Amino acid sequence: MITAAELNLVEHALRQATASDIELLDVASDHVIRSGGKRLRPTLVLLSYKAVTDKDISPAVPLAASVELLHTASLVHDDINDQSSLRRGQATVNAQWGDSLALLVGDFVFVRLLKLIAGFSPRTIRVLADSCTSIVEGETLQMLHLRDLSMTEETYLRIVTLKTAMLFSACSELGAFVGGGTEKHIAALHEYGLNLGIAFQIRDDVLDWVGKEAELGKPVASDLQQGKMSVATIYALKQSDRAAKLLFSGDGERAIRLLQDVGALDYAMLKCQEYAEKAQESLSVLQESKVKSELLRLADYAVTRDR
Amino acid sequence: MITAAELNLVEHALRQATASDIELLDVASDHVIRSGGKRLRPTLVLLSYKAVTDKDISPAVPLAASVELLHTASLVHDDINDQSSLRRGQATVNAQWGDSLALLVGDFVFVRLLKLIAGFSPRTIRVLADSCTSIVEGETLQMLHLRDLSMTEETYLRIVTLKTAMLFSACSELGAFVGGGTEKHIAALHEYGLNLGIAFQIRDDVLDWVGKEAELGKPVASDLQQGKMSVATIYALKQSDRAAKLLFSGDGERAIRLLQDVGALDYAMLKCQEYAEKAQESLSVLQESKVKSELLRLADYAVTRDR
Repeated sequence: MITAAELNLVEHALRQATASDIELLDVASDHVIRSGGKRLRPTLVLLSYKAVTDKDISPAVPLAASVELLHTASLVHDDINDQSSLRRGQATVNAQWGDSLALLVGDFVFVRLLKLIAGFSPRTIRVLADSCTSIVEGETLQMLHLRDLSMTEETYLRIVTLKTAMLFSACSELGAFVGGGTEKHIAALHEYGLNLGIAFQIRDDVLDWVGKEAELGKPVASDLQQGKMSVATIYALKQSDRAAKLLFSGDGERAIRLLQDVGALDYAMLKCQEYAEKAQESLSVLQESKVKSELLRLADYAVTRDR
Repeated sequence: MITAAELNLVEHALRQATASDIELLDVASDHVIRSGGKRLRPTLVLLSYKAVTDKDISPAVPLAASVELLHTASLVHDDINDQSSLRRGQATVNAQWGDSLALLVGDFVFVRLLKLIAGFSPRTIRVLADSCTSIVEGETLQMLHLRDLSMTEETYLRIVTLKTAMLFSACSELGAFVGGGTEKHIAALHEYGLNLGIAFQIRDDVLDWVGKEAELGKPVASDLQQGKMSVATIYALKQSDRAAKLLFSGDGERAIRLLQDVGALDYAMLKCQEYAEKAQESLSVLQESKVKSELLRLADYAVTRDR
């Protein structure tokens, strides 16, 4: 539904936005943007736009590019704090250029979105501003709860809503808003994005355990190694007295076996499915269309994806 | 000319902008904003606004707050990269909360400016966006030239223009723009801010040598220790063969004596004076007024200040 030509417009906008006379910033931001990822957030913007209008997608392109910039910038800073050296199978910016320059590259990618959004309406900028804030708040809260064995699922959901889902909801809400959708449609797509984002992150956490390094583009169980809690680990800690000792023992394979034995991964996927279904239900106000089918499929993909 | 009550409006806007449910972000951003500094950039916005209109300053307050947020955010990130532990006589965010949280606090202070500028015109946002980019480019270029003994004064001026002067010019230009000034006045105030910013930074670098720790709020010669080049060191390196060895010997007192002996500090202050005068000359299009006198005085202050 989103054509390669349409996504190419976004790629072009991304490349233009991060060009710089300072060669290092130019090269490093190109590196991190090219190393790519799924362009899920731009896709979400464009699909939500198309869900409410048949008009040309041009007005949604700078929006689609700006949410990807925001996401990319936050990854660059995360990788510094997580001391990650691989992402999407490529060397991270910090691994390649060191922490200090990586900090500046992340700042650079982020500030470039300001120019991209200069022409947007105040409402659009406000929603983007809130999702920027949420990401930083979520990352901070996550850091404050690293290795917190008494963390609740409620706190986990708060973190995930802030660090991931608020940007998803901004994408779908603003796609619909820029497309001229009704308030009812905008609200529905907001709900859709929010729940999709939660489902997406829960699956992401599960993939950290069950995914293959080649497909993930990073080592298995790196979240745990960094001390990040998840639905599965929180569940396991409630089920088993051995969990606390095993999870942080450094033995990834035994930790995975434990999560399987106590049903923690199944439980997490149940939750993931639950949020994906909530996302799908919120689309009930939209008439049937190819775009709606695509949005429904995207929620299924959030649950079933392997990478 | 800018009253305490007016600056209080800016303080209030700053405090409001950085309030957060995440206690650490709330406390740390409050800490860094309170530890204060001169509020030179907000003052520049308000003075430039008043230079072109008699209207109430309310429309300029969010602008004044947003440039201070931007400045503050960049300091938080600088202090991480410079491994500084003191600024304005207070513990830096990185010293108090560690590098990882400081990175997020800097991000937080920065993203909060987005909400503040949501209602601004596209032109205002574009100028702010450019000054954000410039700061990051300038900091990056500075980092790439640390301990670069062959650095030219031209490169120094490029770095300083990017990292400091472009934000000064944005302050004065946008103050006049938001105040409804003519294009001639806006351009004049842009020129004023740009040259003021260069003068200000050259003096800042000289103060790093000749200032008193109690007044600077940080150790003397810390720029040199961090490998930062300045007008004075570049000049000294051209004048004296001993300079390269002496400057980075770790013996601050001998380095200062060398800079004095070869006339490097005098040369730097001459340059500083030159840019301050350029700033003052660009105000010739403004009619005489108390505000104009204040702007002229501000340029003198950039040269004579001790802190």
